[in-house]
Amino acid sequence: MVNLTEPEISLTASLRELRDRFGGTVIGDSGVNIEACASLKTAGKGDITFAEAARYRPQVEAGGASAYLVTEDFPDIPGKTLWAVARPRETFIRLLAYFHPDPQYAPGVHASAAVAASAQLDHTVCVFEYVFIGEDVRVGGGTSIESGVHVGRGVTIGEDCRIGPNVSLMRGVRLANRVTVHAGAVIGGDGFGYLWMDNRHTKVPSLGSVQIDDDVEIGCNVCIDRATFGMTRIRRGVRIDNLVQIGHNNDIGEDAIIVSQVGLSGTVKVGKRAVLAGQAGVADHIEIGEGATVAAASGVSKDVPPGETVWGYPARSIRKAWRELAHVARLPQFRRHIKVLETRVKTLEEQTNKPDSS
Amino acid sequence: MVNLTEPEISLTASLRELRDRFGGTVIGDSGVNIEACASLKTAGKGDITFAEAARYRPQVEAGGASAYLVTEDFPDIPGKTLWAVARPRETFIRLLAYFHPDPQYAPGVHASAAVAASAQLDHTVCVFEYVFIGEDVRVGGGTSIESGVHVGRGVTIGEDCRIGPNVSLMRGVRLANRVTVHAGAVIGGDGFGYLWMDNRHTKVPSLGSVQIDDDVEIGCNVCIDRATFGMTRIRRGVRIDNLVQIGHNNDIGEDAIIVSQVGLSGTVKVGKRAVLAGQAGVADHIEIGEGATVAAASGVSKDVPPGETVWGYPARSIRKAWRELAHVARLPQFRRHIKVLETRVKTLEEQTNKPDSS
Amino acid sequence: MVNLTEPEISLTASLRELRDRFGGTVIGDSGVNIEACASLKTAGKGDITFAEAARYRPQVEAGGASAYLVTEDFPDIPGKTLWAVARPRETFIRLLAYFHPDPQYAPGVHASAAVAASAQLDHTVCVFEYVFIGEDVRVGGGTSIESGVHVGRGVTIGEDCRIGPNVSLMRGVRLANRVTVHAGAVIGGDGFGYLWMDNRHTKVPSLGSVQIDDDVEIGCNVCIDRATFGMTRIRRGVRIDNLVQIGHNNDIGEDAIIVSQVGLSGTVKVGKRAVLAGQAGVADHIEIGEGATVAAASGVSKDVPPGETVWGYPARSIRKAWRELAHVARLPQFRRHIKVLETRVKTLEEQTNKPDSS
Repeated sequence: MVNLTEPEISLTASLRELRDRFGGTVIGDSGVNIEACASLKTAGKGDITFAEAARYRPQVEAGGASAYLVTEDFPDIPGKTLWAVARPRETFIRLLAYFHPDPQYAPGVHASAAVAASAQLDHTVCVFEYVFIGEDVRVGGGTSIESGVHVGRGVTIGEDCRIGPNVSLMRGVRLANRVTVHAGAVIGGDGFGYLWMDNRHTKVPSLGSVQIDDDVEIGCNVCIDRATFGMTRIRRGVRIDNLVQIGHNNDIGEDAIIVSQVGLSGTVKVGKRAVLAGQAGVADHIEIGEGATVAAASGVSKDVPPGETVWGYPARSIRKAWRELAHVARLPQFRRHIKVLETRVKTLEEQTNKPDSS
Repeated sequence: MVNLTEPEISLTASLRELRDRFGGTVIGDSGVNIEACASLKTAGKGDITFAEAARYRPQVEAGGASAYLVTEDFPDIPGKTLWAVARPRETFIRLLAYFHPDPQYAPGVHASAAVAASAQLDHTVCVFEYVFIGEDVRVGGGTSIESGVHVGRGVTIGEDCRIGPNVSLMRGVRLANRVTVHAGAVIGGDGFGYLWMDNRHTKVPSLGSVQIDDDVEIGCNVCIDRATFGMTRIRRGVRIDNLVQIGHNNDIGEDAIIVSQVGLSGTVKVGKRAVLAGQAGVADHIEIGEGATVAAASGVSKDVPPGETVWGYPARSIRKAWRELAHVARLPQFRRHIKVLETRVKTLEEQTNKPDSS
Repeated sequence: MVNLTEPEISLTASLRELRDRFGGTVIGDSGVNIEACASLKTAGKGDITFAEAARYRPQVEAGGASAYLVTEDFPDIPGKTLWAVARPRETFIRLLAYFHPDPQYAPGVHASAAVAASAQLDHTVCVFEYVFIGEDVRVGGGTSIESGVHVGRGVTIGEDCRIGPNVSLMRGVRLANRVTVHAGAVIGGDGFGYLWMDNRHTKVPSLGSVQIDDDVEIGCNVCIDRATFGMTRIRRGVRIDNLVQIGHNNDIGEDAIIVSQVGLSGTVKVGKRAVLAGQAGVADHIEIGEGATVAAASGVSKDVPPGETVWGYPARSIRKAWRELAHVARLPQFRRHIKVLETRVKTLEEQTNKPDSS
């Protein structure tokens, strides 16, 4: 039977203990007890929050938190306990992980799960209700699979993965370690390719698969298509938001960020640490360079050089695009200029031609 | 065991009874029996349909419906039974609800559903096959949950909700009363937020949740992310179409309309009765004012004042946007004007300078 | 019990046998054995691949495939076995189907599936784990339904259909023969229509349904809404990519192609063999003509004539749109021209007016 063991949520630590663990300097009562993290707006007794810049001083003065993570140059505030560190937001995220650890899953396969005879599951996996696990599947230690998931024939899942409810992992896809797939995502659907022959759109079959490398996170209801041959590849550390479409044979570089509702056609290559903002679209066979940024809702139809930021539809250098936009906004003014010029030229023509006729 | 009781679909009423119930005046045979609603094009014997304006007169003359809901100024048509009311479309929708009521669900929890020991389900709920209901869940009376739904730990669902098949309600989300969630939607996925530290995109955990107020409708395969702290909030009467993305910490005002494939980033605030048309996108921390309209596929990167209509990418006042579009369409003409002016100026220059040289 | 019978994957044929079956001429060793298809880049011993044009000659020279499908005018390459045909890509797709046939499903209904008493399933259907099949459903021979699918009351599914995992087919929808529905798709959700009355958005109920004709393919997480009255209709041979939204009462013509993330509003009519590229959007009541093309991410707000290609937002003739784009790109130049003209006119004015004052 499956038992979800909740992390202890009544964890308490004195500010002194936290400072000893995470560094920095306390101004005020380092004996105060901290139990939880909260936002600057709502933090109360027992909470710690953060203020990244001196301009948040009024909120700190008005607030009721037990302690405030602040920058090293933050002004002292009488009656408030401040904890000065180099990068308050970073330390705050470390505190979040400390006070609010991820839920742990007790090992076990629920009696209602359907696991094929040839599937090999590590004894530490946690499989919830109504999970289907096909033939020749392998699942590594510490991985959890929530209710309603479909794991097709020959799928490989590594260690410490988190597979959300109602996810579909189609035949043969491979997930490495520490991969998170959120609810409703589909990995390994067929590529969308057809050739018009025999008087119909004849399907180009997808003989390849999908490979997801370590430490990737995939959002809710995302679709990642399998390759025609070889692998659609999502490399280490990539973050994919909800409702994104990744086409067949894409290769998404390490630590790339792909925001909600982005759509990538077939054989797109995205460089390391590139960022595709929400609703951007990329045409077939395009390469987005390392560290490049595609602005929200842009439509990319040409390669984007490394480090470049592109914007618009069609996407072009953001500087060029904004200059064009500014010019378009000035068109009514252009038009007036032309009219004024016409009048002046007409006057000149009359003046110039009058003497001749006299 | 679960039994779906179909509403009686052979309901019959005379036109007189209907008029007594819903108001208005019958011209023609008020004794005729009505059994169903239909469209103007296809309505036949036993059907009632509606014609909102006198321009539909030819269709009414050619039609075979037993009765026609019409406006009060609709012309008499010999041989046709007309029912004149102030707003025919409204009365027609009342008739639709009368003749075609929503299906009713008989109470019961299917034997194959997995309900945690600590979950509290009202005795009138209807839970279908393969539904997973986690610890500490509460479900109110009259609610139905269709097959394959995942209800995570600590979720609260109010009364008379309709949860479609394969929906995922993640831990702790709260649905009030009369909330409809269509198939495949995911409520309470993690927010998409990372900070680059320790040489990786480190996740900002989502400690908050999602709160859906009364009378909200959420479309198929929609994603609504949980808040970092506090609540992503969908307020009373909001209507969300299919495949919409609602980011973490959004606050969607009462009776707002969000059409298919709209994408809202984090911490977006949408005012009461605002309308976001299909495929529109909204950037982080933007506020859309009460009653504002965002046109289809627009990209909003600045606050939209109450009542304003914006269009385009970037979204701007629709009047301004269309003026710009009109100017862009006239650019070839501008160019010709400039060329003509150049020629005229050149002629003038020659004329002006010739006398000097003579 | 369900058994998935894998196709024999160690199928082997001599090149001679293949040529006899599919036509063309072999240059080189027609006795060589072929076991699989592969891409030009990766093909090795036992593989066949294809080269569509003479410009791929270097790759063929460097490659290790056992045979190459080439055009009839492809240059001979010593030591390489070439198989010349009229259309190499077409023959290659035939070989793909020959060497890598679709998986076959052994008939059977898994014990964990929930099939209503009144449902009629052909004895050759294959129903996987945790499938819900409601009252009055009919499923034709050779159809497979994967795990977690919801088949609502009164649904009809024809022969040889493939229903992927976690699909939701809502009450009463009709699928004809050889229809493929990929994972997570929802067919028959309610149409998105409301009328503001009684101080709320009152729902226009969807009394109609969805009809999918023969040989249609529907992508992952697609949503197709039911009609208000009558049928939302997807006609023979239509191909729909992932995450597409098809609104109520749409009528999609035969062999149309609808690429990922396209969104169609209500009552849209798409002509035969029209192509809607990725992320395009179409407004209510629009008609896209037969054979028309809507470019990626375009927003269509006016009818598109048959055969026309439209682009942009709002979508307009691609020739017109590109001319406008070119003009916009030249705006800085226009501006300079106007300035130069102004200076010249000013000079003329001074020259013309000076003599008068003298």
